[in-house]
Amino acid sequence: MPGLELDLQSLADVRAAAEPVLSERARAYINGGAADETTLADNEAAWSRLALAPRMLTGVTDPDPAVTLLGRRRPHPLLIAPTGFAGLVRPDADVAIARAAAATGTIICLSTFATTPPAELAVQVPEAPRWFQLYVFRDRGATRALIAAAEAHGYGALVLTVDRPVLGVRERERRIGVRADPELGTIGSPVPVDTSTRVDGSLTWADLERFAADTELPVLVKGVLTAHDARLAAERGAAGVIVSNHGGRQLDTTLSGADALPEVVDAVGSELDVLVDGGIRRGTDVVKALALGARAVLVGRPLLWGIAVGGQDGARLVLDLLLDELRIALALTGAASVDELDASVVRPAPWAGR
Amino acid sequence: MPGLELDLQSLADVRAAAEPVLSERARAYINGGAADETTLADNEAAWSRLALAPRMLTGVTDPDPAVTLLGRRRPHPLLIAPTGFAGLVRPDADVAIARAAAATGTIICLSTFATTPPAELAVQVPEAPRWFQLYVFRDRGATRALIAAAEAHGYGALVLTVDRPVLGVRERERRIGVRADPELGTIGSPVPVDTSTRVDGSLTWADLERFAADTELPVLVKGVLTAHDARLAAERGAAGVIVSNHGGRQLDTTLSGADALPEVVDAVGSELDVLVDGGIRRGTDVVKALALGARAVLVGRPLLWGIAVGGQDGARLVLDLLLDELRIALALTGAASVDELDASVVRPAPWAGR
Amino acid sequence: MPGLELDLQSLADVRAAAEPVLSERARAYINGGAADETTLADNEAAWSRLALAPRMLTGVTDPDPAVTLLGRRRPHPLLIAPTGFAGLVRPDADVAIARAAAATGTIICLSTFATTPPAELAVQVPEAPRWFQLYVFRDRGATRALIAAAEAHGYGALVLTVDRPVLGVRERERRIGVRADPELGTIGSPVPVDTSTRVDGSLTWADLERFAADTELPVLVKGVLTAHDARLAAERGAAGVIVSNHGGRQLDTTLSGADALPEVVDAVGSELDVLVDGGIRRGTDVVKALALGARAVLVGRPLLWGIAVGGQDGARLVLDLLLDELRIALALTGAASVDELDASVVRPAPWAGR
Amino acid sequence: MPGLELDLQSLADVRAAAEPVLSERARAYINGGAADETTLADNEAAWSRLALAPRMLTGVTDPDPAVTLLGRRRPHPLLIAPTGFAGLVRPDADVAIARAAAATGTIICLSTFATTPPAELAVQVPEAPRWFQLYVFRDRGATRALIAAAEAHGYGALVLTVDRPVLGVRERERRIGVRADPELGTIGSPVPVDTSTRVDGSLTWADLERFAADTELPVLVKGVLTAHDARLAAERGAAGVIVSNHGGRQLDTTLSGADALPEVVDAVGSELDVLVDGGIRRGTDVVKALALGARAVLVGRPLLWGIAVGGQDGARLVLDLLLDELRIALALTGAASVDELDASVVRPAPWAGR
Repeated sequence: MPGLELDLQSLADVRAAAEPVLSERARAYINGGAADETTLADNEAAWSRLALAPRMLTGVTDPDPAVTLLGRRRPHPLLIAPTGFAGLVRPDADVAIARAAAATGTIICLSTFATTPPAELAVQVPEAPRWFQLYVFRDRGATRALIAAAEAHGYGALVLTVDRPVLGVRERERRIGVRADPELGTIGSPVPVDTSTRVDGSLTWADLERFAADTELPVLVKGVLTAHDARLAAERGAAGVIVSNHGGRQLDTTLSGADALPEVVDAVGSELDVLVDGGIRRGTDVVKALALGARAVLVGRPLLWGIAVGGQDGARLVLDLLLDELRIALALTGAASVDELDASVVRPAPWAGR
Repeated sequence: MPGLELDLQSLADVRAAAEPVLSERARAYINGGAADETTLADNEAAWSRLALAPRMLTGVTDPDPAVTLLGRRRPHPLLIAPTGFAGLVRPDADVAIARAAAATGTIICLSTFATTPPAELAVQVPEAPRWFQLYVFRDRGATRALIAAAEAHGYGALVLTVDRPVLGVRERERRIGVRADPELGTIGSPVPVDTSTRVDGSLTWADLERFAADTELPVLVKGVLTAHDARLAAERGAAGVIVSNHGGRQLDTTLSGADALPEVVDAVGSELDVLVDGGIRRGTDVVKALALGARAVLVGRPLLWGIAVGGQDGARLVLDLLLDELRIALALTGAASVDELDASVVRPAPWAGR
Repeated sequence: MPGLELDLQSLADVRAAAEPVLSERARAYINGGAADETTLADNEAAWSRLALAPRMLTGVTDPDPAVTLLGRRRPHPLLIAPTGFAGLVRPDADVAIARAAAATGTIICLSTFATTPPAELAVQVPEAPRWFQLYVFRDRGATRALIAAAEAHGYGALVLTVDRPVLGVRERERRIGVRADPELGTIGSPVPVDTSTRVDGSLTWADLERFAADTELPVLVKGVLTAHDARLAAERGAAGVIVSNHGGRQLDTTLSGADALPEVVDAVGSELDVLVDGGIRRGTDVVKALALGARAVLVGRPLLWGIAVGGQDGARLVLDLLLDELRIALALTGAASVDELDASVVRPAPWAGR
Repeated sequence: MPGLELDLQSLADVRAAAEPVLSERARAYINGGAADETTLADNEAAWSRLALAPRMLTGVTDPDPAVTLLGRRRPHPLLIAPTGFAGLVRPDADVAIARAAAATGTIICLSTFATTPPAELAVQVPEAPRWFQLYVFRDRGATRALIAAAEAHGYGALVLTVDRPVLGVRERERRIGVRADPELGTIGSPVPVDTSTRVDGSLTWADLERFAADTELPVLVKGVLTAHDARLAAERGAAGVIVSNHGGRQLDTTLSGADALPEVVDAVGSELDVLVDGGIRRGTDVVKALALGARAVLVGRPLLWGIAVGGQDGARLVLDLLLDELRIALALTGAASVDELDASVVRPAPWAGR
């Protein structure tokens, strides 16, 4: 993307640049949320309802963003959220994102509905740190095969998505006729499958317990929004929870990650790794998440905007922008390392009427 | 409406499609509210000031929306609110709506000012579950005749509207000259009557007691907004109350159903059936109402938009959209049945500054 | 105004109709407020931040809006606020307004800077109930002459304006060059005088005491916004206070009448008559003011809009609209008389984030 | 600026007039803030979330805005905030501003990155009351030379900026390529230097202690936003703190001066002089700051708008407008002097949902 850097100074810039590049179908799928998209919009807004109260003269100009995640040291707290059907943007989407992830030490969470299956991605980008996002199929054999592939190909954790018992009210997708697509149905397809026919929505906490017992991989539960469910996750063998509302694509008017995070941290933060996603667009958003007790954050749509704009380079730009902003935000908050962040750094934002 | 379904994915879509179809007069009458229409707008907004805190991994993919209403099991908690002068939209409006109601197991509350009188509706759509909405006339003989007709023709309850001692400040109607219409005056008329000349606004709680004693039908009091009035309704023989502000058409800047509901449930929820109307446009709105203690909800204007767009099919589409969204919202909230919903599912919405 | 009534259904309609009729100078003077006009806008908005919690089935269709003011029974709680230089709108402005006031039993508060002097108004419209608004001049002889004129010509009270020690930051007026007008200076002038050169801004509570002692008329202090000042008014001989911010023309970002009223009522409501002005545009605003303890309300700008649109008939229309709305609001709130209103009828509006 | 005064009635007017006059580069540099510019916007908005509760009949028409600052009496509480690279607007910017400052008794805080070095400014405008804003360079010799110059040329205080360990996310500057400018690097340059390469961001409270001990000048710490840091400033020898977020140019979504001020005053107000900057645009903003305990306020961007519009006369106009508004605001608040202002005058603004 020579010459583009001056114009792409933020994730919002990347999104704007991606809009005209994306097909109507990809735009509907990527940018859409459920129903009135109240939660979709609030995912971003919620971080802006938190203000930062920085410390000065701490001597920090070059803070260390390293974190400990599932007991291992990671260079920074960013992960790439699972996004299905990235092939809608470009055929090599998952690979391009994984290469950018590898280059920046970012864990990619490959989706069950990724365009590139887990084994193939591992072969093509073996250096990418990677987790595998799991939808449990009605066909449990297919599910066991997916888990086995993840275990065999160096995926470091399973991310079990629990907020999709049925599909949300996705009007943009319906309008564009995504569900009616004739080519749907296979994992690795460049177009969305009718996931409703394959995913087993009737999963329970007992299933989680079984999966956690049956795999050598740590299991993170993605989609928890309450202390109640976080405690159940802890009791049933999860290694971590990801506070998430599925990018605003499932239950509209539910809580944002930013707003649900404190009660989850309060409930299980001392036992489990708590991660959060939804609306993270700025380094300051990451600092707020960490200060509220998250171990790490996941970023999804911006990577798709990035590859739309510039393939692997675009994905890399997105990660570099966020990491650069994160370092600046840490320094300006006065934190030499992530461990120095705590809830005293975050306040209800006066401009949000609180 | 062949081909329309892709474009009509929500009640908002139906409304937008209805706008150009409705006559100026019908639009003023249907969509208008009192004065500055603060309450009209807030009826919808108030549901969006509530956030949902869902439970995950409850194993629910096919929840049962059935409720118990006036001691009887109903397949779902939707009712059709009484709307006068539906004939403004099309002459067979009430019949078309009743047929859609029948097809979906939805109770229709026929208005005293319906274009189709209660006996005729019962003859034309005998399979429609139905209640009768009562305005008490100065001519009590006419009123007794209406009640007798309701009793004789299978109406299951009387809904006594109590928030219309005088007509609200309806500027859209005044502007279009609705009150000055020369053809007004008869029940069953396709145009609004000057209801002020016929309705007895001086009704009291003693009148309620008398009506409740004189009829075999359960009487619900529609238009209650405070615990104070809900308690009086309970003392004076009502079988239920409908928390309502008359669709924002009477007292502007009064409370929305969503905001008045909790105090009414708190006051009489253990004794009476509490229902609510106003601004219900999404399945999530219904879930919130039920979680706050309502037994059922009433939906009015959307049915008129529906028949404007597609007659009986349009009304059916509106009910199907809402029922489909309700099932999705229940599943995504983690509730297998309505009985599993309680106030813990609902929170003040952080995006509303609360 | 034949034919206009259908289009003028509210004070907002009258304002819109007045805009093109008013000269640029009159528009700047009448509609302008201080600085960023935050308080000007909030005067109206503040009433909308209060919700009404009505009582049903009270049997009221024809409520009595009568109030007791300074010990006398008045047919309703509306007064016409003093507005200087009404002659900017039309030469006979004060007389036209006074005639409309007389026809509706409304007290007019004639301004010291009225275009028509107090004696002349009394001669031309002897039937108008009237109070006199007093600015104290540096020339105390001129002031005594004004008071004597008020006493001699049937004015029932003196309204001493206390919130104008200096002129506010009136940018619209400055921009239009109002202060630089060469014809300024005489009471009764059709254009604004440079009031700063004549009004004595250094008035104190001791002056109030002296004026109250020296006149037979009851003195109301206009411009009080705090309990502190209300108590001083009571101690120093005032018969009443008018909670007011001078129509948003003096100190920008100060409290609206609606927000300052409760603490003033709390402090002196049992001793003095408390009135309020600012932003009253609806019958529901009047009900809220009365429910919060005001004895009456003053309305200013709408009368000027009214005479711009239709002279005396326009002023009359404004008063009729407000009185009609007031009766409807009382009936819909369930109050047979003003005495039945109390603070239980008013709640913080949920839509205002409170 | 003959003829302009009628059109320039407020700082907002001056800003609007400056827009077309400024180069694109100057506009980006002057008006820009960090990231989403949430804090930039909130700096102004935060003062508007405070309401004034004035006292009447205090007899004040000509209040005295004098304050005591660092133990000395000053005619008023306005200071000119340090602004680097004012030469972007016009080559003689600092001198023009200093002359306007001198004419109005306003202290100018000359920036380390001023276009005119401290010695030269002192020579050119010896009558200007002046402080020197210090960025500490990695080259401590250069820093000592700057301090020596300030001491030798009559600067009355050092203002140590502490909120710039690294440069904020300044997108407008980046977009316009300010950092890539080939001519950067020298103090006194008409274009921004890449300050990141020269400023020592690793400063600590121990450094402050050393600087305070080594200079005869009182040292004020600029950039404090919390009680925690204010206490450290007091312990380490500061004579005062300036509550500031660097004009919204450093950490986005941090607290505004208006919101951070109370906790800082509470923590150190009895020991140190507390000043505040950010978003001061009205005399009422100044009154609020003083009422909340600030000794004085700094104003930055408006002076640059002023010189863009009219050089020294434009700067003077800005100061005159603010001082005129301040006097009016004091009189309308009922305060004869700044000492009479206290927190009772300020309330959370009801229109801000608080």
